[in-house]
Amino acid sequence: MPKGVPESVPDDGLTTAQRRNQPLLMVNTGDGKGKSTAAFGLAIRSWNQGWNVGVFQFVKSAKWRIGEQTVLERLGQLHEETGEGGPVEWHKMGAGWSWKRKEGSVEDHARDAADGWAEVKRRIAEERHDLYVLDEFTYPMEWGWVDVDDVVETLANRPGRQFVMITGRRAHPQLVEAADMVTEMTKVKHQMDRGQKGQRGIEW
Amino acid sequence: MPKGVPESVPDDGLTTAQRRNQPLLMVNTGDGKGKSTAAFGLAIRSWNQGWNVGVFQFVKSAKWRIGEQTVLERLGQLHEETGEGGPVEWHKMGAGWSWKRKEGSVEDHARDAADGWAEVKRRIAEERHDLYVLDEFTYPMEWGWVDVDDVVETLANRPGRQFVMITGRRAHPQLVEAADMVTEMTKVKHQMDRGQKGQRGIEW
Repeated sequence: MPKGVPESVPDDGLTTAQRRNQPLLMVNTGDGKGKSTAAFGLAIRSWNQGWNVGVFQFVKSAKWRIGEQTVLERLGQLHEETGEGGPVEWHKMGAGWSWKRKEGSVEDHARDAADGWAEVKRRIAEERHDLYVLDEFTYPMEWGWVDVDDVVETLANRPGRQFVMITGRRAHPQLVEAADMVTEMTKVKHQMDRGQKGQRGIEW
Repeated sequence: MPKGVPESVPDDGLTTAQRRNQPLLMVNTGDGKGKSTAAFGLAIRSWNQGWNVGVFQFVKSAKWRIGEQTVLERLGQLHEETGEGGPVEWHKMGAGWSWKRKEGSVEDHARDAADGWAEVKRRIAEERHDLYVLDEFTYPMEWGWVDVDDVVETLANRPGRQFVMITGRRAHPQLVEAADMVTEMTKVKHQMDRGQKGQRGIEW
């Protein structure tokens, strides 16, 4: 927990409070576990502060619902009912983005990813959310499904006080360069190495 | 997301289902962010599966309440009210463990940590929880406040189907050896390096 005193104080003319309140671009990358889990944990913490949370799962297999979606949507519902926390939206690519009309049955993941990014970009321009979780967004960036320059420029120049957390392996160097905080999760040891498969409650 | 096919299948006489259902001892370590956040994210996922979750914060400064505590306790309350998810208990050392009577004002963190471990050990023997989050428990282990052999032996031989997640830097080699899954969070880049302090909604 790096709380407390920063290692150095920059000569940027900002007060500590101003600097403290700068919105962050964060990346959880690496081959280890916990990238998305920590991102959703952050989303829950943000909800508790009353933030407007938007989750965008750029996962082509996201037809199934993970536990965090159920919980975060339940928290969003609590917000509507009681005013606790903040509003929550959860969108996923796998079953077709929820804001889109379904267009036939052919799955085109590249198009879906580009559509997802276009929507996120619109929302950033409108300052719709306080926190965006772009889950597994490093892959569309890696595969050329979205334009890396466009992504980095949009994120670096986003208006207002919007926080962004991006997860996925092999984060693009330009994204790492633009980010305020980058954490690498590394697998030291994993039960699958000795033949154990994923299980309910742990993996999903 | 390492879902799917394991790298090798051990010759241990277990079926895939049996192996899948083996309870795990997990460790999130390293100097980077996300160790505790991912652990609490796991706790939320476990809650959603109806598991009985026990969180034990071995943090001497844990007098303040983090967002995850509010949310997990709220989820535990939802369970009591509606039957959704599972029960949740959250205990922290900083203000004196909640199961203990306060004994004067002298703070003795070594004693508090040993008391915390003794309680966790009792609960493990009684199979009280499905998931134990022992947050920042690597430090009492490192500082000799708890006996490493006792901890590792108790965890390795725990009865039933109890999952354990331990967080903190510098996980003890014996703990790493005993664990099924160890993830190291490494700081690649952090905004505090350029003088920005922690902020609400992100750090707590």
